[in-house]
Amino acid sequence: MKHITVNDYQSRPVVVSHSTSVYDAICTMFLEDVGTLFVVDAQTTLVGVLSRKDLLRASLGKQTLETIPVSIIMTRMPNITVCKKEDLIIDVANKLIDKQIDGLPIVAEVDRGSGFEVVGRITKTNITALLVDLANDEII
Amino acid sequence: MKHITVNDYQSRPVVVSHSTSVYDAICTMFLEDVGTLFVVDAQTTLVGVLSRKDLLRASLGKQTLETIPVSIIMTRMPNITVCKKEDLIIDVANKLIDKQIDGLPIVAEVDRGSGFEVVGRITKTNITALLVDLANDEII
Repeated sequence: MKHITVNDYQSRPVVVSHSTSVYDAICTMFLEDVGTLFVVDAQTTLVGVLSRKDLLRASLGKQTLETIPVSIIMTRMPNITVCKKEDLIIDVANKLIDKQIDGLPIVAEVDRGSGFEVVGRITKTNITALLVDLANDEII
Repeated sequence: MKHITVNDYQSRPVVVSHSTSVYDAICTMFLEDVGTLFVVDAQTTLVGVLSRKDLLRASLGKQTLETIPVSIIMTRMPNITVCKKEDLIIDVANKLIDKQIDGLPIVAEVDRGSGFEVVGRITKTNITALLVDLANDEII
């Protein structure tokens, strides 16, 4: 198991613009059927992460969700935990448990904006799928 | 891995009454720091499950969250997937992937109400923790 990388068990990323409303972000989460969204700036580099928990917290507030931009409620750099395609999946599993989060953006370094482009997503669902494959002896 | 049971990797369950409002259920989710709540009737037997996704969907509606009871939006019997303490964790992992859900109630059979008392909770977080332990060779 210790040689399996993020690249072997990733999902596609779903991104929204930093000016998207909380309401539209929740709609995107349902339409795309994901639990984590990544927020990008005008240069399409990573500036934030939105979990179901972040969006649910916002829904408790008194403001209408249509008028709050996601940039107000997202987790932002430098508080975002990221990983790379070549990282070991067991290191990602450790980060998910340590930081108590559901998923991480998989990034590539670029020479613009925040310096990170989002190239994938890895979540506890991918980890659970790996465990199922391990139990079925599809991986040694 | 194939002999590890639900009992080895469970979490405590958090329950709310079927008459709780959606607003109070979201607050309970934050206070208790869980992603899944179980709904019980007056006889404290299982009648529903609430995920973050269910609560987020409700927050998109026009009604105020304080006035909607969770019984309107919960997943209810017989659509709830349950497991027992002695079930194999790999079978639970398969169910979580197949049904696309985050967690299951662990139940015991009783002679009242729905026939199920909630005795625990098992989620993709428990499965991720198991994978970390497996990689650390704490379990063979």
